[in-house]
Amino acid sequence: LNRQIANQPVTIFTLMSELARKHNAINLGQGFPDTEGPQDMVQLAADALLDGRNQYAPLTGLPELRAAVADASARFQNIPVDAESEVVVTSGATEALAASFMALIEPGDEVVLIEPLYDTYLPIVRQLGGIPRLVRLEAPDWELPREALKNAFGPRTKAIVLNTPMNPTGKVFTAEELAFIADLVRQHDTYAICDEVYEHLVFGAPHLSLMALPDMRERCIRIGSAGKSFSFTGWKVGYVTAPAPLAAVVAKAHQNLVFATAPNLQRAVAFGLNKDTAYFTQLAQEMDTKRQILSAGLARVGFGVLPCQGSYFVMADITPLAKGLDDMAFSRLLTEQAGVTTIPASAFYDAQSGTPPRNLIRFAFCKREEVLIEAVARLEQWK
Amino acid sequence: LNRQIANQPVTIFTLMSELARKHNAINLGQGFPDTEGPQDMVQLAADALLDGRNQYAPLTGLPELRAAVADASARFQNIPVDAESEVVVTSGATEALAASFMALIEPGDEVVLIEPLYDTYLPIVRQLGGIPRLVRLEAPDWELPREALKNAFGPRTKAIVLNTPMNPTGKVFTAEELAFIADLVRQHDTYAICDEVYEHLVFGAPHLSLMALPDMRERCIRIGSAGKSFSFTGWKVGYVTAPAPLAAVVAKAHQNLVFATAPNLQRAVAFGLNKDTAYFTQLAQEMDTKRQILSAGLARVGFGVLPCQGSYFVMADITPLAKGLDDMAFSRLLTEQAGVTTIPASAFYDAQSGTPPRNLIRFAFCKREEVLIEAVARLEQWK
Ligand SMILES: CSCCC(=O)C(=O)O
Ligand SMILES: CSCCC(=O)C(=O)O
Repeated sequence: LNRQIANQPVTIFTLMSELARKHNAINLGQGFPDTEGPQDMVQLAADALLDGRNQYAPLTGLPELRAAVADASARFQNIPVDAESEVVVTSGATEALAASFMALIEPGDEVVLIEPLYDTYLPIVRQLGGIPRLVRLEAPDWELPREALKNAFGPRTKAIVLNTPMNPTGKVFTAEELAFIADLVRQHDTYAICDEVYEHLVFGAPHLSLMALPDMRERCIRIGSAGKSFSFTGWKVGYVTAPAPLAAVVAKAHQNLVFATAPNLQRAVAFGLNKDTAYFTQLAQEMDTKRQILSAGLARVGFGVLPCQGSYFVMADITPLAKGLDDMAFSRLLTEQAGVTTIPASAFYDAQSGTPPRNLIRFAFCKREEVLIEAVARLEQWK
Repeated sequence: LNRQIANQPVTIFTLMSELARKHNAINLGQGFPDTEGPQDMVQLAADALLDGRNQYAPLTGLPELRAAVADASARFQNIPVDAESEVVVTSGATEALAASFMALIEPGDEVVLIEPLYDTYLPIVRQLGGIPRLVRLEAPDWELPREALKNAFGPRTKAIVLNTPMNPTGKVFTAEELAFIADLVRQHDTYAICDEVYEHLVFGAPHLSLMALPDMRERCIRIGSAGKSFSFTGWKVGYVTAPAPLAAVVAKAHQNLVFATAPNLQRAVAFGLNKDTAYFTQLAQEMDTKRQILSAGLARVGFGVLPCQGSYFVMADITPLAKGLDDMAFSRLLTEQAGVTTIPASAFYDAQSGTPPRNLIRFAFCKREEVLIEAVARLEQWK
């Protein structure tokens, strides 16, 4: 068997979700909303099943969804893209990431990755023979370590992966940080994979895409997620926008990986992307309210709650409460004893190099307010 | 960019489907039915969207679908599998194939592939650093060349891919052929990836799975497709059955590639798999009728129609009609002049080695009878 894949641990999200079920804990681990997205989208997806379009969608996606992705790109990010040649619909952002890595990486290519990072980046890069060059952000500010980032780029660099708003830190990269990264990408003549699945979930700080910066239009693969933008994580509809020559290669990787995505879900997502700006603003506002409820509650309990400008997640320093336990042990203990499940942040660091911080855990706040309040109450009582 | 992916041609299915659209041709190219599958499944898929289960499904699939896959495996193939640990639901058989290759192949591993072959096998094997060892079946009988197959196995062999019922040949492997392959797999201590997406579409010849043979239970990854078994190719729901240690690694590859598949579609497919045997028998009978209509019609037109025991496809020798044109040129001409689209069979051979036959084209007969009759009429008139 492929040793690298075989030795990969079962994803921490599955592990903690199973533990949550076992102990009947409130699951603030895996990032998914506990309410449904817009009912008009569900209804459209259901109706769309019934009118006889259940065979293969086109490889790069239904024209109506590609058009909606292109419109949204222009409307929200000021990035004009051609719906015909510059959009590829995928089976979720995870597949979009895999296809993007496949399109770019050849064995020996270096890929700059920023820790803490989402858990599929490293195994895919490594399986394709890519060499990760890791740069670490440090809590509590998660500031970009410019010198280290500069040093991570070199003649073998093929791409950098930039996740903003960032999972698990909740960081939103600033215009200055993006400009610094763009300079490096330009200087080293590389690409950027822009994982922007939380693009609509920002709280005050504006989301800016690297792709919108000068010269970056031709160097970026930008990834979006209907799961995250419409609270239907189960649908697994994602989309890539990239310059035509790059999009064509991503499409070929997608052809080998999945080929196409369910037409009825694509039609519902097209409808969703065409919604008024008000829908997206309201989603962010509602999420911000949830964030504030949870963050304030955790602070009352005694956690060192970190700032959060975007995404579904807030990080907390466990030092005041953990009595010397590391993040993994403490996370288990919270599930078992307090009935609240979180994700130990060390899971977002490379297991093969360096020592991850062991004092942070991640809470998902994309849950109903009463659930967040109950979780805080359980933690208060447990403490 | 990754040169191997970048140089991969756009899939012949997309190419010919686009040509068909442009010329308003009847599309007997890409393999998808032109009618919907069971209406009770569509209705269930639609209803299932409305009851609030639209977040991430479990990594390996919904328990009810895994149970249904396990039941069907025992019922139809006499292969008992554990629903908990030996089934992985994927986003279609294409993803199942990609995940299976990822689970098995390390750079330098050899993979035995049988030509003509489905067009994603080679690029995935090559991208993972695998070395294809090709064995070719010859028209019109597509008999297994036992000596050549034996010689293709060696100390570096990791796996063989066995597609039965076979696309594009319509061949169904016999018990004797399977026993011969099983011997090689056993002797060389390798695995088999069993692409059995057309398992229910056989016409007289019984479908046998390699996995049902002695000692093969622990060596096979068997792949099924709801798209093909229920005529919903657009849903992209596939499933893998494999011994637990192997299934666990396929699940990890799936975790990096897609992660999960839409819950409502999984629920509908679970319902479908639990249907009476009568449903599957009738599907095969209806498909056989279509096959007979098309085969007889093509013979009348003057094609050298090859026998077909299973799948959606029949191959035809174009020599009597092609006036020296090769399969690609003739296939284009048929679309443009006769208004009937097919797939040139050379697309199912490795472009990097050997010379493919140039006298065969593939017709898909998974279409309404009147469409098949009209296609034959157009060919008659064109001739
Ligand atoms: C695909 S499961 C992980 C969901 C998620 O994005 C997260 O929890 O970080
Ligand atoms: C995924 S498109 C190809 C469909 C198919 O199985 C075929 O036509 O061979």
